[in-house]
Amino acid sequence: MNYAQLVENIKRKRSFLCVGLDTDVKKIPSHLASEEDAIFKFNKAIIDATAPYCVAYKPNLAFYESLGVEGWIAFEKTIRYIRENYPDQFIIADAKRGDIGNTSKMYARSFFEHLDVDSITVAPYMGEDSVTPFLGYEGKWVILLALTSNKGSHDFQLIKDENGRRLFENVILTARTWATPEQMMFVVGATQGQLFEDIRAVAPDNFLLVPGVGAQGGSLEEVAKYGMIKDCGLLVNSSRGIIYASQSEDFAEVAAAEAAKLAAEMSALLNTYAGI
Amino acid sequence: MNYAQLVENIKRKRSFLCVGLDTDVKKIPSHLASEEDAIFKFNKAIIDATAPYCVAYKPNLAFYESLGVEGWIAFEKTIRYIRENYPDQFIIADAKRGDIGNTSKMYARSFFEHLDVDSITVAPYMGEDSVTPFLGYEGKWVILLALTSNKGSHDFQLIKDENGRRLFENVILTARTWATPEQMMFVVGATQGQLFEDIRAVAPDNFLLVPGVGAQGGSLEEVAKYGMIKDCGLLVNSSRGIIYASQSEDFAEVAAAEAAKLAAEMSALLNTYAGI
Repeated sequence: MNYAQLVENIKRKRSFLCVGLDTDVKKIPSHLASEEDAIFKFNKAIIDATAPYCVAYKPNLAFYESLGVEGWIAFEKTIRYIRENYPDQFIIADAKRGDIGNTSKMYARSFFEHLDVDSITVAPYMGEDSVTPFLGYEGKWVILLALTSNKGSHDFQLIKDENGRRLFENVILTARTWATPEQMMFVVGATQGQLFEDIRAVAPDNFLLVPGVGAQGGSLEEVAKYGMIKDCGLLVNSSRGIIYASQSEDFAEVAAAEAAKLAAEMSALLNTYAGI
Repeated sequence: MNYAQLVENIKRKRSFLCVGLDTDVKKIPSHLASEEDAIFKFNKAIIDATAPYCVAYKPNLAFYESLGVEGWIAFEKTIRYIRENYPDQFIIADAKRGDIGNTSKMYARSFFEHLDVDSITVAPYMGEDSVTPFLGYEGKWVILLALTSNKGSHDFQLIKDENGRRLFENVILTARTWATPEQMMFVVGATQGQLFEDIRAVAPDNFLLVPGVGAQGGSLEEVAKYGMIKDCGLLVNSSRGIIYASQSEDFAEVAAAEAAKLAAEMSALLNTYAGI
């Protein structure tokens, strides 16, 4: 999916919500957990219920890999299901990959050719040749970790260089020389609040993928206030707050209600901060 | 496998060689490639041939994931085969993972409980809570990226902070407060030559996992000269230089000869630089 299509979907749906499919077999409703293919059935129900209110889905690979082969099958089925039934959804493989060029090429092939997702999250530590192999695909995106939502983000990402520039700023400034805003987004945690202003100083026109609203405590209002640009430029992710909102038989309905609530807030924020 | 056992294996075998199982279906001998279960059959032949000359195996997950479900099956079979037939081999899942604590926990479960490898490579960018979930397992190790072998390693890893300390030094110094040298190694590329002296200034007693000898051009002699400590403290990896040394029916024999050659060099270096 290209930049223009993504912006068009956001405007049409009045939502910049991404639903995180962090599906943990230990947390899904008990009536489903014992069934065969439980993970995929859970995802399918969540997707069918939430699709009207979101523009993207983000399965985190860790949750699938932790189940080995069975998990990979569920992951692939989930991607295929979204692709076939909701072609206007942007799919993010939250994989946080990044390896030497030769190896990153294998990952790119895996995610963009074999699985056909729209984007993959990539860790920046290994530098340019670990990232650029993901850039040769039309309409596909790299989403590079910049300033993450977790406590440990302060350990290295805020280290100032000799000129007072922090590592996350160096990452963004350097990565912007590798790719256009039509190919690259940055991960910025919702928990970072006012630091969104500093992000926009170095990434004025990139989309930001924003985890950390909900369970992790970030504020949607602050994210929009400091991070929104005229094309919106935000994909805000919620995982646990939506998919585990109920653990009973009504889990899909309750997930839809939570997604609808966030979408309604987003509609108002689009109006206030982007005039959309 | 714990620290003492690893050192004991190195002394007994007079080798600190790690064989990288970066198995690419496009590069394995044609007589095998068309067979069912080709990846595992190739790995099995390589392992049986090289086991006398090495102390560790390092499959890089990218090569397996690029094949989807089928690749995961081959990966799991390979790990199981090593575990059952060569229990004195140290197994490294080269996965370069690293995510928020909640998610890193899933990865730890996947690699240490489900698969039972000895260690996993982890990217440091997200900081403490992305790394520590891997540390709660007896005899299991985190191998943290510090100074990698690729060209892009210069993009961020060498950035100096306000006190002149480079990022890879900050990563090592901080990570050493999270884990003992019995739980944590660092990845340092063989291509970094004299920088091994600087690594040893901040990590005097950690094992280093050293990729980049062979195809990437690093010098084994330099690595030993600047990086070896009294317990050896090195695992030097070679992948392509061993597993693709021949693409004919004799591939396993030729791989064994290449591994034996490296082991002989290593034996001499152990004598010269560690007095072992």
